[in-house]
Order: sequence, then structure tokens, then C-alpha cells
Amino acid sequence: MAGKPPFYAGIDVGGTNIKAGIVDCVGNPLGKASVPTDAVKGPDQGIASIKRVFELALQDSGLKKDEIRGVGLATPGTMDIPNGMLLMPPNLPGWNYFPVRQRTEDAIGIQTVLQNDANAAAYGEFWAGAAKEAESLVFWTLGTGIGCGIIIGDLIIEGRHSHGAECGHIIVQMDSGRLCGTGQYGTLEAYCGAKALVKRCQEAIDAGRASVLSAWISEGQELTPLLIATAAERGDQLADDLIMETARYMGVGTVTLMHTIDPDMVVFGGAMTFGAETTELGRRFLQEIKDEVKKRAFPIPYAKTILKYASLHNDAGFIGAAGCAKLKFK
Amino acid sequence: MAGKPPFYAGIDVGGTNIKAGIVDCVGNPLGKASVPTDAVKGPDQGIASIKRVFELALQDSGLKKDEIRGVGLATPGTMDIPNGMLLMPPNLPGWNYFPVRQRTEDAIGIQTVLQNDANAAAYGEFWAGAAKEAESLVFWTLGTGIGCGIIIGDLIIEGRHSHGAECGHIIVQMDSGRLCGTGQYGTLEAYCGAKALVKRCQEAIDAGRASVLSAWISEGQELTPLLIATAAERGDQLADDLIMETARYMGVGTVTLMHTIDPDMVVFGGAMTFGAETTELGRRFLQEIKDEVKKRAFPIPYAKTILKYASLHNDAGFIGAAGCAKLKFK
Repeated sequence: MAGKPPFYAGIDVGGTNIKAGIVDCVGNPLGKASVPTDAVKGPDQGIASIKRVFELALQDSGLKKDEIRGVGLATPGTMDIPNGMLLMPPNLPGWNYFPVRQRTEDAIGIQTVLQNDANAAAYGEFWAGAAKEAESLVFWTLGTGIGCGIIIGDLIIEGRHSHGAECGHIIVQMDSGRLCGTGQYGTLEAYCGAKALVKRCQEAIDAGRASVLSAWISEGQELTPLLIATAAERGDQLADDLIMETARYMGVGTVTLMHTIDPDMVVFGGAMTFGAETTELGRRFLQEIKDEVKKRAFPIPYAKTILKYASLHNDAGFIGAAGCAKLKFK
Repeated sequence: MAGKPPFYAGIDVGGTNIKAGIVDCVGNPLGKASVPTDAVKGPDQGIASIKRVFELALQDSGLKKDEIRGVGLATPGTMDIPNGMLLMPPNLPGWNYFPVRQRTEDAIGIQTVLQNDANAAAYGEFWAGAAKEAESLVFWTLGTGIGCGIIIGDLIIEGRHSHGAECGHIIVQMDSGRLCGTGQYGTLEAYCGAKALVKRCQEAIDAGRASVLSAWISEGQELTPLLIATAAERGDQLADDLIMETARYMGVGTVTLMHTIDPDMVVFGGAMTFGAETTELGRRFLQEIKDEVKKRAFPIPYAKTILKYASLHNDAGFIGAAGCAKLKFK
């Protein structure tokens, strides 16, 4: 598969792995690779890993370096996107105030653009994934945190201070809200993040709700979203209730975004979609989000806005990062 | 004052009055006029009034009709902006499914563009008012309802289904929330709108809170936001508490918008700003919003986002509508 030029590279730096891919002008991946981030070894080692994963992906694609028009680099925040700087990224300890865009450009030798990882993944789904047909998109990525990216036309809502689309932090319960890992109360993430699900489950068990999970915990298993999902799939009522409650909370956040952005499409990705459309639990999770949206949204946006699962999975980040390079280096 | 061409007309259709103005290429008003809407007389009478108020404003400006490059028409929703249609506007009874853009263009004889009234007012403040220096803006208009407009660069976030920036309806209290006039629970408007303030006040009085308002109501005065503001200005603790509570709720809504849009600036306008910067109460109201934002926002957006009052007041709608004509008819 040769692909259509121009070609772009996308690099997605996560707390655990760095993924890279070479894509053609319509976002088809021609080659990809992954290496460990080793974030604790610091940014110099990080730049060496970024260079290596780019070279591995390039090799996998069969293209030559001078055929790559630009590199898109996606990293977790906080950051200053226009200046290509990491500020204080919690998942990349020791990378504070690091000029990651310039250092990547110097190391690889190709013009490079920086983007927030959730924004890049959103752009990936918008450009070449589940939202390919959409004119505008709200993208949620459900995991340890609740990530978000917003695309309107070819505009990525990165914000004036690189804090746009941080919608895991929107306030859904201003009075008597749950405590979030950020120290704030009543945020969406305080209800829907992986830790929040585990916490709500532990509270229910402590309050005496019957569940197979109690036995599993006694046997030494760790209470995780995956364990809760397994229990739900085996018919455990508490586990199922908690997962469907998570869906309703995501419905609330989605309605607030529909009232704000009124997008064509809302796409959900990440580990906390419980297998997405491949499992009954995942399908019921999305249906529960839709049912909550129906209750709370205006009739026209409810009827017209498409809610669906992401399609690019772990490749969304590097494909979207490459798409950001395409936006910048035409 | 001659003003710089090209010139545009802006028409702002409200439930009570229709205002029109002629502005120059940088948004300076050269002439203006106002006539009653008489919404109950239906859309044909409405179009006649739109034509008349345009002619009065044109006359006031001293310009000739062929010097006007385009007309911007702002109306309350619901609407289909790209198709120039009103759908079911609650404040314009009898105007349902009315092709208001085309009918205005036919009546006046100048190319016309339609925009939602809150979006137009936001664009007015962005183009020629309080947010003139901003790159992006969230604009709140506080009154009977909580209106909102969002501008990013020259993009007005009107949404894919003309329901963008309806942020009075974002959910700030998903569990045990107050009931909104729309039938939804826990929306921002259910806490901050004029009716919500009056309702919260009545509840406090009924619960036995001491206030000069009890005596005033016994004397036959109607409990309104203005009466509550008067009481607050005379040192009434309950009235003051309720108004500052309203500010804190607006702070919550503002933080959610900062997490979503991350704008350069957030501007507050409308009658429920209690005199804005011209009164001590108004100045304290804004300070209370800022204090709440400080508690809940991320440090960088808190430090860098400017929160201030609107400057164009009742002219924002027609100036912004004219600005929409300028965006469309360059």
C-alpha cells in the first residue's frame, strides 16, 4: 500500500509508551512503532526515544525521511502549544518547562508542530476515524482521567492559554460535589474517571450493597474498572448499576457540551467504554449515555447529534498528531 | 462624524422593541432608531416594523440606502441560522417557521444575514466593545434568561444545528438541581436567571429570613430583581447574600466555559449585572464572580483570562448584527 503524498509523521507521547506512525495525506497509516517512554529518565532520554520511534515507524512505512513533510507531536499537558513548551505535565515528571517541539525538530530534522494529546486524538477521529463525515466534533476519552478534544471545521479548540477542551474538569455538581484528584469538587472526572468508579464501588460495598466483588476483593483481587466490568458482565447488579451511573454522568457532561458547542457528532473512546461496540456492556453503556442526553438536551440537537464510539483506538493520537502537521505544513 | 465605508446595518429584534443602527467598517454607530415589536401582531407586521426601523436609522445616519453593503438581522431563537428561518421563538409568538432572513432582504432590498441575538451581541462586544482587544470571547447576558455567545477569532460558535452557546442551559447541579423554566433541572439559568433570583428570595423569606423586602412586599410592591438590588444597596443582608450567591453561580458557569473554550476574555452584560461598574453593588458582583473563578479554575487560565463588564449595553445587538453582515458581505 503506497498511500498518497504528502506524508506526515505523528508521534504520541504517553506516560507509558511513545507511539509513532507515518500517514498519507488522508490519514491512512503506512507504518507504525512503539517504544517505552521511560519518563522518569527525563527529557533528554525522552527526545532520544522520540527520535528512535520515528525512525522505526519510518522504516516500517518503507518511506524515506525526505518524503515526510512534517511531524506532529502530541504530549499530555500542561503545555504552551504555540510556543511548543511543556509546562508541568503530571505524567512526565522532570519534563517541566521543556521546549519539546524545538528539541524534537532538532533531533529528527523535520519541521514539527506540538499539540495536546487529547486534542490530537480528537483530530485523528475527525480527520480519519469515527467522525470523518462530521463538520464538528466533541471527543471524550474515558480512562484514568476524562480527556476531551473539540474540533469545529479545521479549528482545534486549543484555547487562548492552551487549556481549551479540558472538559473532564467542567463542574456538574457545584454544591455537595465529589472531590476530584485535582483538588476540585463536583467535576465530571470526579464522577466518571477510573478512580471515581472504583471509589463509588468501594463506598457501595462499605455501605453493605451485595456484590460478587466483595468475595473477589477478599480473595486478594484489586478493585479496578476492569474487575467491575467483569462483575457486571457476569450479572452482578451493583457493578452494572455503577457502570450505568457512569454513563448517565457522561450524558450530563455531553449535554453541557451540546449546549455549548452544538457539534455534529460526539465520539467516545478510551478504556472506560468497556469494550465499546464489541461487548453488550459497551453497547448498553452508550445507550445509557444517549438516554440521559435525551432527557436533558433540547429536542433538535438531541434528534440530530450523532453519538458513537471512536474507531481508531490507540492509533488516534499519532494519526491526529500527523493531521496537525498536515494542518500546519500544507 | 462621517465614518469609514463600507457601511452596514444591524437590526436587533427583541420581544418588546426592534432596534436598528447603521455602523461603519469598524463598528462605530452613525445612526440608530427603535420601534415597538408588537410581536403579537405576527410576522407580516414584524417585517413592516423591521423595514421602518431600518429606514429611521438610515435617516438618522445621513447615509443613502445604496451606501449600505449589507444588513445583519438578530432575532431570539429557536432558529435555523444557515437557512435564515425562525423555528419556534418563545418571545415572538406567531412567528413559527418564518423565513425571516429572506423576507427582510425582500422588504429592505439589501442582502441580509441572520444571527441569533445573543451571538450577535457577543460579536458586537468582540468587534467594537469591551472585548475589542480579545482574540476570543465568552459573553454572558444576564436577564430573564441567561444568554451566551462565544467568539473564537472571527468564528461565531453558532453550532451545527444553530444551538451553539446556549450556555444558560448547561448543567451545574445534576443531582437535586433547581427546576428551570424550560422544564430541566440544575441548569445555570435555574440558579441565575431573574426568576430564579426572585424564587430564591421568596423561599428565604418564607423560611423566616429577616429582610426589609418582607415589609415592601406587604406594602404591595412586586418582588423583582430590581427591588432586591434596591434592598441590597440599602444594606439588607438577605438581598445582598442572594445577589452574591448569584455571582458565585455565574462563577461556576464561567469556570465550565473556561475549561471548554479557554477564551481570552469573559464579558458580562444585561440588567442582572446590577448597574455593572457604575454601582458599588455591580462592582462587588463582578468581584464575587472573580473570587469564585479563582477557587475553581486552573491557575494559568485564572491568572490570564480577563473578566469584565460589557460596554455597548443596548447597542451591542445591532452593532454585532451589523458585524455579522460585515463578516458575510466583505
